[in-house]
Amino acid sequence: MLNSMVEISAWIRSIRDNGRIAFIDIQDGSFAEALQVVAESSELPRDCHNGAAVLVRGTLVKSPARGQNVELKAEQIFLLGNCPQENYPLQKKQHSLDFLRSIPHLRIRTNTFLAVARIRSFLAQAIHRFFEREQYYHIHTPIITSSDTEGTGELFSVHHKKGTSFFGTPSYLTVSGQLAAETHALALGKVYTFGPTFRAENSNTNRHLSEFWMIEAEAAFLDIGGLIELSTSMLYYVLYELYKECIEDIRLLSTLHTPELIEQIEHLLTTSYVRISYTEAIDVLKSAKRNFTFSPQWGMDIQTEHEKFLCEIHYKAPVVIYDYPRAEKAFYMRVNDDQKTVAAMDIILPYFGEIVGGSQREERYDVLLCSMKEQGINPSHYTSYLDLRRFGSVIHAGFGLGFERLVQCATGMRNIRDVIPFPRAPGLIPD
Amino acid sequence: MLNSMVEISAWIRSIRDNGRIAFIDIQDGSFAEALQVVAESSELPRDCHNGAAVLVRGTLVKSPARGQNVELKAEQIFLLGNCPQENYPLQKKQHSLDFLRSIPHLRIRTNTFLAVARIRSFLAQAIHRFFEREQYYHIHTPIITSSDTEGTGELFSVHHKKGTSFFGTPSYLTVSGQLAAETHALALGKVYTFGPTFRAENSNTNRHLSEFWMIEAEAAFLDIGGLIELSTSMLYYVLYELYKECIEDIRLLSTLHTPELIEQIEHLLTTSYVRISYTEAIDVLKSAKRNFTFSPQWGMDIQTEHEKFLCEIHYKAPVVIYDYPRAEKAFYMRVNDDQKTVAAMDIILPYFGEIVGGSQREERYDVLLCSMKEQGINPSHYTSYLDLRRFGSVIHAGFGLGFERLVQCATGMRNIRDVIPFPRAPGLIPD
Repeated sequence: MLNSMVEISAWIRSIRDNGRIAFIDIQDGSFAEALQVVAESSELPRDCHNGAAVLVRGTLVKSPARGQNVELKAEQIFLLGNCPQENYPLQKKQHSLDFLRSIPHLRIRTNTFLAVARIRSFLAQAIHRFFEREQYYHIHTPIITSSDTEGTGELFSVHHKKGTSFFGTPSYLTVSGQLAAETHALALGKVYTFGPTFRAENSNTNRHLSEFWMIEAEAAFLDIGGLIELSTSMLYYVLYELYKECIEDIRLLSTLHTPELIEQIEHLLTTSYVRISYTEAIDVLKSAKRNFTFSPQWGMDIQTEHEKFLCEIHYKAPVVIYDYPRAEKAFYMRVNDDQKTVAAMDIILPYFGEIVGGSQREERYDVLLCSMKEQGINPSHYTSYLDLRRFGSVIHAGFGLGFERLVQCATGMRNIRDVIPFPRAPGLIPD
Repeated sequence: MLNSMVEISAWIRSIRDNGRIAFIDIQDGSFAEALQVVAESSELPRDCHNGAAVLVRGTLVKSPARGQNVELKAEQIFLLGNCPQENYPLQKKQHSLDFLRSIPHLRIRTNTFLAVARIRSFLAQAIHRFFEREQYYHIHTPIITSSDTEGTGELFSVHHKKGTSFFGTPSYLTVSGQLAAETHALALGKVYTFGPTFRAENSNTNRHLSEFWMIEAEAAFLDIGGLIELSTSMLYYVLYELYKECIEDIRLLSTLHTPELIEQIEHLLTTSYVRISYTEAIDVLKSAKRNFTFSPQWGMDIQTEHEKFLCEIHYKAPVVIYDYPRAEKAFYMRVNDDQKTVAAMDIILPYFGEIVGGSQREERYDVLLCSMKEQGINPSHYTSYLDLRRFGSVIHAGFGLGFERLVQCATGMRNIRDVIPFPRAPGLIPD
């Protein structure tokens, strides 16, 4: 490419013109760094402003300037699309993320959101590569459904525009594809989903969305140990690939928003995941000689302060906690021999919190029926699910990963609304 | 692997027992073909039936039987999950697809649906590989939206369970991610989506679903010619990869349902796509000396009978038709210099019909505004979309591919409800 004639179409990111020579940074979205165009000022067409689209014909040459390898010596510049500065919401100055959230169709043109979008895309594609390599089949579980997986979620309901019943039964937006994924795991062996899920919770925080994407993996003949192996190797794989391939974008976000980002990702890639049972975790917390707001005792939820202590102070590593008290967990999780715990697992990352949750599923018909009754769940709403335990039932396990949480972890963006193109949340008007 | 000791967990697909030796076909979902287990009848545990899950310990040996390379000489067989025959809906006999549609959680255990699921998964992963190779960024466009892309679709509306307004505006399930994708193409350059889309049309046919998955690609600096290139190479790539990697599954479906399937796929892979303008297409049809039900004339819709004539009789090839009459097409399609046509394109496959539709988008603010007004569309509902034409507008183009249509094309399944795990259609009760 060097010293060859090229034609590049792109948008202007900034322009400095001393009346004799103009330096124009252009970007077409494909790289973290802009390309510097050097042109004679007299060559500049009218209306060459920040945000305008141009076609530059010229020669790629080795750059004398520091911090860039090549620059484009322009012979001709054509204006493709004007960008009237007086109305353009993106000025050259740094805008607040808050302001940018109000213009999702334009914020994607900023360095921050371009970097986040590239990382998000890379992670999504890496997840597909990982599961393809592990010979998992990709399945699409339904979005419109009549069931509420855990019986606890706040649901969005779906109606025909004219208010008539369309499916002949109340229908909702899915909160999880797990139950459907289980049906396929018990035939295809190993499956995963990657699709949107919904929560109508009225929680207006920087950690919740009404619409978010989730990866759910489910495999037959897999126990809780295998599940921990699978989910930790997936995390390791996608973060390692990202670190290898997208370091410029990570660096950019590190500079703009989260100085500690690179170090945190490197820490995750060089530290083994600690595996402890819930009971061990409580013991560690009890002997910690710390003033926790919630005093640790067996049976309680592990709180954020406890997670932070375990990951950041005690182990200084990502921590997998498994075998949780049965009373706190969903009906479908497999009851352990002690009858007190279930084969559930969570992955907690330092400086981040929970990222993966999963469990071995209860494959024994009688035990499952019993857990349903204990939790006040009507088995007649789950006949398909119970069928899986009546006909050729085998042990199986699966996990869920909130995709936006992974993107947050990889980008260091603190507000979840900044890692999805068009966030949906209570009161946020969809465009 | 040959002659080595293995342990395989799988489900029994059939069993023949002569009282001395038993032949058991087992399958774990990973291959089109079952593995034959040979065991002494006395080794069989009780309840070894069709559908039961077993663990077989034994040696993989070269098979003396025709049509298989290896078989598993069993030393021990353990029953993992019983399958009471008297209640099991899947009997050994071939079930009708109609009946199987009533048990989506179990139909996936049949050879047909296992093959369809493997092909579907392969195609999805191949699509991601294709776009990754072409350096397209994967984006997730929103599912809940307040806009109706083309102003024509029948929409599902979304409500909070308790009937309260959640987003502060009427919200619907998306019919297309195109408008959102355009915002990202004009910053990232090249993007694609792969997500669910919805139609509340009350059409109960074997070609329509209320919920289906769509791939939409959108690229800046791309014209209609580049778009035709992109979409045809995507189709070629995924079908060629499928043919290379999944021929056993294609063969299986060809045997069970669609004898002509292999030949049709081979035809697509060995024939160049013909490119003709709509006007040329009408001319060819006019001079065809055929009694069409709809007599061809400029300005009319090209009907199925016309598509069939063009692809199957006249050209004997897949056909790309471009530059359609403006009056019939959506407001966002780019008006050609003749003012009569727009830069839209469709790909029509022989023995199948339309599979891809796309267009170059109108990038000129004034022309777009004019097209909106002509079609009675209120520009104030499209301010973001118009912003893209006010600030740094460039030529761009995109196409949409209904994923289930692609899976139908690759599997030969005639009813679209048989190529998605849990079909949603009017009157079909979601589970």
